[in-house]
Amino acid sequence: MGHTASYYWKGKDITTVFFTSVPFGMTSDEQMAWLYYDEGMKLQEKVYSKFNVYSFPGGNTGVQMGGWFRKEIKTVDDLKGLKMRIPGLAGEVFAKLGVNVTNIAPGELYTSLDRGTIDALEWVGPGMDIKMGFHKIAPYYYAGWHEPASDMQFLINKAEFDKLSPQYKAVLKAAMQTVSADMLADNFDASAKAWEQMKAEFPNIKVMIFPEEVLKAMKKANDEVMAGYAAQNPEFKEVYDSQQAYIKKAREWSKMSTQYYLQTTEMVEQK
Amino acid sequence: MGHTASYYWKGKDITTVFFTSVPFGMTSDEQMAWLYYDEGMKLQEKVYSKFNVYSFPGGNTGVQMGGWFRKEIKTVDDLKGLKMRIPGLAGEVFAKLGVNVTNIAPGELYTSLDRGTIDALEWVGPGMDIKMGFHKIAPYYYAGWHEPASDMQFLINKAEFDKLSPQYKAVLKAAMQTVSADMLADNFDASAKAWEQMKAEFPNIKVMIFPEEVLKAMKKANDEVMAGYAAQNPEFKEVYDSQQAYIKKAREWSKMSTQYYLQTTEMVEQK
Repeated sequence: MGHTASYYWKGKDITTVFFTSVPFGMTSDEQMAWLYYDEGMKLQEKVYSKFNVYSFPGGNTGVQMGGWFRKEIKTVDDLKGLKMRIPGLAGEVFAKLGVNVTNIAPGELYTSLDRGTIDALEWVGPGMDIKMGFHKIAPYYYAGWHEPASDMQFLINKAEFDKLSPQYKAVLKAAMQTVSADMLADNFDASAKAWEQMKAEFPNIKVMIFPEEVLKAMKKANDEVMAGYAAQNPEFKEVYDSQQAYIKKAREWSKMSTQYYLQTTEMVEQK
Repeated sequence: MGHTASYYWKGKDITTVFFTSVPFGMTSDEQMAWLYYDEGMKLQEKVYSKFNVYSFPGGNTGVQMGGWFRKEIKTVDDLKGLKMRIPGLAGEVFAKLGVNVTNIAPGELYTSLDRGTIDALEWVGPGMDIKMGFHKIAPYYYAGWHEPASDMQFLINKAEFDKLSPQYKAVLKAAMQTVSADMLADNFDASAKAWEQMKAEFPNIKVMIFPEEVLKAMKKANDEVMAGYAAQNPEFKEVYDSQQAYIKKAREWSKMSTQYYLQTTEMVEQK
């Protein structure tokens, strides 16, 4: 039994990305609902069955931050030639916008950012980022757009799982679902506490939203990247279409429930 | 073993309300993190131990909608004399603002709203509301403020639970946590799908946010209600203070993660 993230198998099968997180994709509420109550787990089984394994949801980081930047991004032009560590589909999107996308070993990231070898990088969120120390050297912390609900995965040998009794299968599935829910709560708590600490120690850090022009350019580039894969790969298209159809209805509900609630409570707190 | 919601025990012990949801309280992400990784479950055990039971989290509805209104609420004055079915602390808050708060049996709610015996009511959210039919007769559906993450509960006899082996206790706790996560995903999916259906059949329904003036009046009234209970009851004050301290840091993270993500994706979708 393995524990990793589905999008690390992107080189073997690009469709695996959907079971972690994709740019402008689902929040954790939306993803959990799609996986467990819509087509998600059925499609996940289809994609993984050709490798003779089952993949089950195995924890979630929630929304990942868009990364640490040494300079403010005001226009799409500010992205041109910017050196950034950002892997995966988000890297492909940024590359289309002229970013010089690079990969650097985790142990060298701090030094690379500090010395200006790179201008920006993304990691996870406050809970994990605080250990890396990026907040000491990059004052702009951009809100996320590229991994809104990164899901981990449990991988199980198909033949071995199929041998289990129905009762043991049910126990194992419940245990994996517990771990998954637990990691989301753990990560949320760690990020809330780490951010409080970062902000207290480095009050100069600014939490930023990318400007509307930049976000729209990212969205356009992302739609092109996704359409490119969908045109070559019918299975990729099938899962992409399923997620897009689900987001269409789920996002309406996220907006009228969570988004409006958070916006209205912000309104009453304002001085 | 019982399954219900903690705030139904409000008449026995007012502090039980915090383990379901309180007005202007936590979202489900925040509440899960507080319960499992901060002081929540420890305080829940303290409050319930005097009744010789354990209470464990047992499912969550996510954000509940603020209710169905036949008339638009434009000012605080529009609340004066309004007849509304809304129970619990939210009812106490509305009563302070001049609402004529009333309780009506579920089976009579539709007729009461249709005939104008009441002007407004709150129930849960689209997934549950659709079965009640309120969307056929009340065009304004207000976003929530009063139950941002209503948690269900499992109640277990303390003496019986304490007799279980450590292994069985762990299995039971994991099973309850699985049910809890599962209900959140189920409810999210049901609300997304029910809302899509309501909107298609009744395109005249407007999703509304209460005006800033009204929200600020509700918040002020709510702070007074909570301060009143806290002044009389040290245990209420202890749990309230713990939640308020947690919200202070958790909300910052909710804002920079989920809220900003939803707002930015809304920006790129705009025509």
